[in-house]
Amino acid sequence: MQSQPIIDRREFRNALGAFTTGVTIITAVGTDGTRVGITANSFNSVSLEPPMVLWSLAKTARSLPVFSAAGNWAVHILSATQEALSDRFARSGQDKFAGLEVSPGIAGIPLLEGCAARLQCKTSFQYEGGDHVIFVGEVLAFERCDAPPLVFQGGRYALAARRESASLAEVPEGDPEASFGEDFLGYLLTRAHFQFLAYVRGLLERKGLTELEYFVLTVLNIRDGGTIEQLNARYAYTGYLATPQLAARLAERGMVNLEGSGDQTLCTLTPSGRELTLHLTAAVKAFESDLLGRFGDWDAVVLKNLLKRLILQTKPAALAKANTPES
Amino acid sequence: MQSQPIIDRREFRNALGAFTTGVTIITAVGTDGTRVGITANSFNSVSLEPPMVLWSLAKTARSLPVFSAAGNWAVHILSATQEALSDRFARSGQDKFAGLEVSPGIAGIPLLEGCAARLQCKTSFQYEGGDHVIFVGEVLAFERCDAPPLVFQGGRYALAARRESASLAEVPEGDPEASFGEDFLGYLLTRAHFQFLAYVRGLLERKGLTELEYFVLTVLNIRDGGTIEQLNARYAYTGYLATPQLAARLAERGMVNLEGSGDQTLCTLTPSGRELTLHLTAAVKAFESDLLGRFGDWDAVVLKNLLKRLILQTKPAALAKANTPES
Repeated sequence: MQSQPIIDRREFRNALGAFTTGVTIITAVGTDGTRVGITANSFNSVSLEPPMVLWSLAKTARSLPVFSAAGNWAVHILSATQEALSDRFARSGQDKFAGLEVSPGIAGIPLLEGCAARLQCKTSFQYEGGDHVIFVGEVLAFERCDAPPLVFQGGRYALAARRESASLAEVPEGDPEASFGEDFLGYLLTRAHFQFLAYVRGLLERKGLTELEYFVLTVLNIRDGGTIEQLNARYAYTGYLATPQLAARLAERGMVNLEGSGDQTLCTLTPSGRELTLHLTAAVKAFESDLLGRFGDWDAVVLKNLLKRLILQTKPAALAKANTPES
Repeated sequence: MQSQPIIDRREFRNALGAFTTGVTIITAVGTDGTRVGITANSFNSVSLEPPMVLWSLAKTARSLPVFSAAGNWAVHILSATQEALSDRFARSGQDKFAGLEVSPGIAGIPLLEGCAARLQCKTSFQYEGGDHVIFVGEVLAFERCDAPPLVFQGGRYALAARRESASLAEVPEGDPEASFGEDFLGYLLTRAHFQFLAYVRGLLERKGLTELEYFVLTVLNIRDGGTIEQLNARYAYTGYLATPQLAARLAERGMVNLEGSGDQTLCTLTPSGRELTLHLTAAVKAFESDLLGRFGDWDAVVLKNLLKRLILQTKPAALAKANTPES
C-alpha cells in the first residue's frame, strides 16, 4: 500500500471503487408532473426501526430541486439484466422514461419494473454532505424479486457469486496434490469437465454410443445435414475427428442417412436418430438443471459468463494474437 | 414482485440484501487508549470535493461513545482474503485486536493491514438516522492496493467478477447452435476444457506423449511411486485407465522404472522422466499464467472458486446423495 496525496481525485475515486456496491435508480415526480430519475450507487441502509435508507445526490444535479421538493422517492435496486437501464439513467439530457413501462407509486412516484428490489420512501432528512446532499428516507413500502443483482466494482459492472471456502479435500491436507488441484485452472477445468462427462458417458454407454458419435448426432440435431468434413468443423475444438467408417456405423444402426459418395457424402438424421438424440439431450439437460439447482442459479450465471470469456480467450485466433510480439 | 407489509423486518432485511456491498472494518481509539473496531457494510462515498464518506452505527453499539468522542476513524475496505477478519470484528465481547498487526494512524487510529483500500477520516457530521447514527467524515489520507475486494450479497459473503456481455458468436446469430453454446454449462465446460487442452496436446505431441501418459507422469511427479491401480485411482475422474503395456512403454523410453511384477509392479519416475514432466508442467503453468493475466487475476479467483464448488457437486458421492429419494 502506498499513501496517496488526497488531492488526486482520480486516485481517490479508484480507492472508493474498491468498495463494491449494487446499482440503483432513484425516481421521483415533481409537483408539475416532471419525472426525474438518476442512477446512483451511493445507496445504503441506515435503520431497521424505523426502516430507513439513504443516498446522495450531487448539488449540481439538475434533478435536485425536484427530489428536494418531492418528499417521496423510490429506490430501484437493479438486477443483473438491467445494465442498459442503468446506463440510460446515468446519462442526462433526454427523456429517460421514454418507452419504459412505468407504474405510479405512492404520491405518483414513477416505478420501474424488473428490479431485484424496490423501496418507496418519504424524505426524513436532507443533510449537508460536501458537494452532495444526503437524502435519508423512511421506507413506506417495498418489494423484492428473486433476481441476481447488478454489481458495480472498480468502476465497471460486475456479477457477484457466493463465496465458499470450497476445498476439494480429496487428498489429505499438506499433500502436494491438494494444492495442485486448488491452484491450477487447467486441472479444475479438466476435472469439472470429466466429472460432468461421467454422467453423459453413463447415458451413452447404455445406448452403445461413443462420445464422438454423440457429437455427430448432436450437431446434426441442431442443424441437420452435412458432409463429414462439415460436421467435424463444428466440434473441431474437441480435437475429435469422425471418419466415413463412423458415419457408416451410425447408418447401419439406423441413426443417420448417407447420400452421395466419397467426400461429398451427405449425412442427415433419421427420425429414430433424432428421437434418440432428443432423448439423450433431454436427459443431459435434466441432469444439468438439477445440478445447477443445487449449485445456485445466480452463481450459475456468473460461472457461465466466466467460462464464455475463457473460451473467447483460448480460441486459436485469440491465442495466436496474444503470442505475436506486436501485441 | 409482491408488496410486503413494512413491519416484516426479516423481509425488509432480505430486500436490502439485494443491494450488494463491500465489507469494511471501521476503527478508532478513545482518549483513554481504548481501541474499537466494528464490521460495517453501511459505508459509502458522499463527496469528492471535499472528499467525504459516510457509514452508520447502531445507537446500541458499545463502541458508539468512543467513535462519537474520537473525532477520527479509519475505514478498511476488506479484500477477498479477509473474511475471518470481518467475522472477528462483527462479533462483540473479546479483544478484537488481539494478535493482529496494527499500526498507528492519524491521531493514533489503529490501522489494519492487507485491505483492498484504507481511508483515514475526521468526523465532519454526526446525523440522526433512526436507530443508527450516521457518521460523515472528511478523508485525510488513503491507500489502496490491487487486491480483489470482499463482497456481501443476500446476507452472505460473495466475490464479484467483471460482467462482460461475452458472446461466443462462432456461428451466426439466430442459429440454434449459438444459443446452445450460450445456455448449457455442459457445453461451455467441454469447450473450455478442450480449448485449454489444445495447448497441452500440442506440447505433448512434440514429446511423443499421449494425454494418459502425461497423467501418469504428472501424478508420479506430485507423489512418486505407485502400482498401476494406485495411479489410476488418482485420475479416476477422467475415466482413463493406464495398462501395464502403457507403463512398459514409458519404461522403454526411460521415463519410469518398474520394479516387481504383475499387479504389484511399482512404478517410479526416472530422473529424465522427472525432468521431462517438470519441463512440461512449467510450460503449462506459463501458458495458464499468461492466459489468466489477459483474463484478469481477480476474475480467475472467482472462476476457480466456482469450478471447485461444481467439482464438489459432481463428485460421484455428491451425485448419488442428490439422487436418493430421502435427500
